Amino acid sequence: MSAHDITRLGVKPHLSNAVVHGGIAYLAGVTPATGITVAEQTVSVLEQIDGLLAEAGTDRSRLLTAEIWLTDIRNRDELNAVWNAWVTPGNPPARACVEAKLAFPEWLVEIMVTAAV
Amino acid sequence: MSAHDITRLGVKPHLSNAVVHGGIAYLAGVTPATGITVAEQTVSVLEQIDGLLAEAGTDRSRLLTAEIWLTDIRNRDELNAVWNAWVTPGNPPARACVEAKLAFPEWLVEIMVTAAV
Amino acid sequence: MSAHDITRLGVKPHLSNAVVHGGIAYLAGVTPATGITVAEQTVSVLEQIDGLLAEAGTDRSRLLTAEIWLTDIRNRDELNAVWNAWVTPGNPPARACVEAKLAFPEWLVEIMVTAAV
Repeated sequence: MSAHDITRLGVKPHLSNAVVHGGIAYLAGVTPATGITVAEQTVSVLEQIDGLLAEAGTDRSRLLTAEIWLTDIRNRDELNAVWNAWVTPGNPPARACVEAKLAFPEWLVEIMVTAAV
Repeated sequence: MSAHDITRLGVKPHLSNAVVHGGIAYLAGVTPATGITVAEQTVSVLEQIDGLLAEAGTDRSRLLTAEIWLTDIRNRDELNAVWNAWVTPGNPPARACVEAKLAFPEWLVEIMVTAAV
Repeated sequence: MSAHDITRLGVKPHLSNAVVHGGIAYLAGVTPATGITVAEQTVSVLEQIDGLLAEAGTDRSRLLTAEIWLTDIRNRDELNAVWNAWVTPGNPPARACVEAKLAFPEWLVEIMVTAAV
């Protein structure tokens, strides 16, 4: 069942928090652990992403892609204020940010990234 | 027009059902061929994914990522019941699941995966 | 801060227009620069994608994946008419197309692709 060329981190029944293969870390869509506002929830999501990237042997300066879902696209400026401060200067990923309802109504933001290891 | 390092499966005018390159199979968003309920439609989608993965020379134990769209996010538990039974134990992909309207109103679920070959 | 194995094109504070790594070009979600109708906006998006692919050292015949967001999924036929004429015959990417609200209400379509370099 296991494969030597694929490493899975934070394995749950429905998803792995991250999968590493061929020099790339593929992270699951990360949802907020704490926070009421979009800014607070974005901080929570990005902290978890930092942790997963570290576990995968990489960091936010090596992001390749990011897909961001906001439950209300009008919160994009509030998201971007936190996001832009978090991205390492000169190294933002290729990104898309669109509106979508998420699994739980209290979640306002979800972010899924890939990074070079 | 063709390239020796890229293999395309199920080529239609607007998409390939799968594209294989550099040891990774990239599948198109797969939509239900049969089924009325979310559970039935998820079975249909996952059967098609199994077929495409086999055609690409891999299988569901080597999934890297999955993006799932539900037309009603409240159907997530019903999706997960089928999904969790399908995933090989210990080998779930990095996954995101959000709500979105799909191309035809009778489609309730769409799933797009990548896998190591 | 820079990495020799990652090339970023069109770097802005929140995203890079494209990131090239490991023989793959990852493009950001591209939004319309001009156009009122979905057809016009799709032309605008695809022209920008052609430019970014060229900058990354590749072209539309080497697309691997495409994710398309329409603000109204009923515009899918109008999108496809432009899309199908743009894709090089026999070489469409693995694609998903779903409905989502985008950052600005005047934007009706956004497309995010990857391509082999």
